[in-house]
Amino acid sequence: MKWAVLATWKMSENGNRIASQILAENRKASEAILHGISDVEDNPSFHSVGYGGRPDTNCRVILDGGYMDGDTLHFGAVGAIEGFRSPIHIAYSLREGDANNFLVGQGAEEYASKHHFEKRDNLTEEMIVLYEQEKEKRKQLSAYDGHDTVCFLAKDSFNSICAGTSTSGLFMKEKGRLGDTPVVGNGFYADSKTGAAAATGMGEEIMKGCLSYAAVMYMKIGMPVQEAADKALLQLHQELIERNGYANPMSLIVLDKEGNFGVSTNIDFTFTYGSDEQSTENYIAKLQNGKTVITKLTE
Amino acid sequence: MKWAVLATWKMSENGNRIASQILAENRKASEAILHGISDVEDNPSFHSVGYGGRPDTNCRVILDGGYMDGDTLHFGAVGAIEGFRSPIHIAYSLREGDANNFLVGQGAEEYASKHHFEKRDNLTEEMIVLYEQEKEKRKQLSAYDGHDTVCFLAKDSFNSICAGTSTSGLFMKEKGRLGDTPVVGNGFYADSKTGAAAATGMGEEIMKGCLSYAAVMYMKIGMPVQEAADKALLQLHQELIERNGYANPMSLIVLDKEGNFGVSTNIDFTFTYGSDEQSTENYIAKLQNGKTVITKLTE
Repeated sequence: MKWAVLATWKMSENGNRIASQILAENRKASEAILHGISDVEDNPSFHSVGYGGRPDTNCRVILDGGYMDGDTLHFGAVGAIEGFRSPIHIAYSLREGDANNFLVGQGAEEYASKHHFEKRDNLTEEMIVLYEQEKEKRKQLSAYDGHDTVCFLAKDSFNSICAGTSTSGLFMKEKGRLGDTPVVGNGFYADSKTGAAAATGMGEEIMKGCLSYAAVMYMKIGMPVQEAADKALLQLHQELIERNGYANPMSLIVLDKEGNFGVSTNIDFTFTYGSDEQSTENYIAKLQNGKTVITKLTE
Repeated sequence: MKWAVLATWKMSENGNRIASQILAENRKASEAILHGISDVEDNPSFHSVGYGGRPDTNCRVILDGGYMDGDTLHFGAVGAIEGFRSPIHIAYSLREGDANNFLVGQGAEEYASKHHFEKRDNLTEEMIVLYEQEKEKRKQLSAYDGHDTVCFLAKDSFNSICAGTSTSGLFMKEKGRLGDTPVVGNGFYADSKTGAAAATGMGEEIMKGCLSYAAVMYMKIGMPVQEAADKALLQLHQELIERNGYANPMSLIVLDKEGNFGVSTNIDFTFTYGSDEQSTENYIAKLQNGKTVITKLTE
């Protein structure tokens, strides 16, 4: 394939089309990822990313993002950042240089201010209502309430592969909590010689098995992309059940260096894929009898 | 072996003896790690960890730490935390529960205050002088100025393996900068069924190859411990030179499930190891002709 773009969740469909258009014009994978993810960050009807994201335990929308360049293995990431429009753009800007590529909290916010990244209050009225309801119920925090991270993997016509992520993290998370999203190797990984991967789900569970790096490494030692995805995720899923009695939700998207996709999950997980050989299409992956079954999503 | 403990840098020698004593009494690997690392954190003559650590760009000592339990794969971590005595104890306390295991910045500090972790101003007069000198010189930040993370890996007589890390990070680092130390899979990883690994050096470089997870994974697919260490580190070292023209300092300690050690580095790197079969001894590892050569350290 000349180019391909793979993204988590049906919410990324429009972003995938935007990214596909960019790649079809022989522009760079990095550009495709930035525009694709920003489309999701800016849409208040998606409640797990950017504007309109679910708040933390203090009713504040705190964001994370990560970016990796598969040519150089350089990455940039921001964690626990408040009041900015686009974590993916800030993360991308941090990829250069040998040090200080991963910034969190106040330091990340001061960096973003200093470099004039656009500010935005990401808390919407709708999410304030949701927060108040949740607080009233004081119910047990469900393990899967609102952490549908947007992840984009792209291969361009120059054979560069990049990965990007953005999220508001777990609903009602503690102040300063990082999930896998800004954490290289866990939430995202890219190596143009091999491929890329990114994860969504319960970040703390994903980090127990370094899912994104694991999938890329399995491809590196020779596995086809779907086998690598399943090997990384389902092996961790099984290990966690054996050791702890259960495994929380995890989903993993993987792109090989040719542009083929692989996806693995332990829930029902939607994703979106486009390439120069097929226009953007939505799929659903499910775990059935110990393997991932993928079908096209029909409305 | 019944038990074994492996730690980064000669500065961990006394901590290694303390940890060895604990393991020899058939106490837990977690206990050995907490006491071993705390010994380094509390010593102001070690300028890369805890009390007496090198300050950041604002002359503040900001600490990171991580812990992983190889039985459950649960981990805890704190990043960019100021004013507390022992990051490893705070990280350890965060290992339980399904969420909020990795806290950074103000959120991590509020958690530590709420749970009554001992406070301490970690900035010493000696480090203020060093900071002022550095600021005056305004020299280029050297890639290896002061990031000798303390990492401990321990196997106990119950066959549990744990990993722990603690650091003040890169000298003159930016506010909010995280290196590999609090990042699971990068700075540390432990799986009692396979072994454990932890890294020290330029965190941003280590994170380009998820070194700790990579080493454990190579053991998982059948490599002996020294081969796994070299495969993870030297492969990344080579990839970075090919792609970017250079590779910054990285060192990796690895313990297999039997208690044998492997070490790989691209600098001159000291470490310390003890087990029920030999008392604590210091070693030096060097990269020679494309492989790691390890010798006992003589005074």
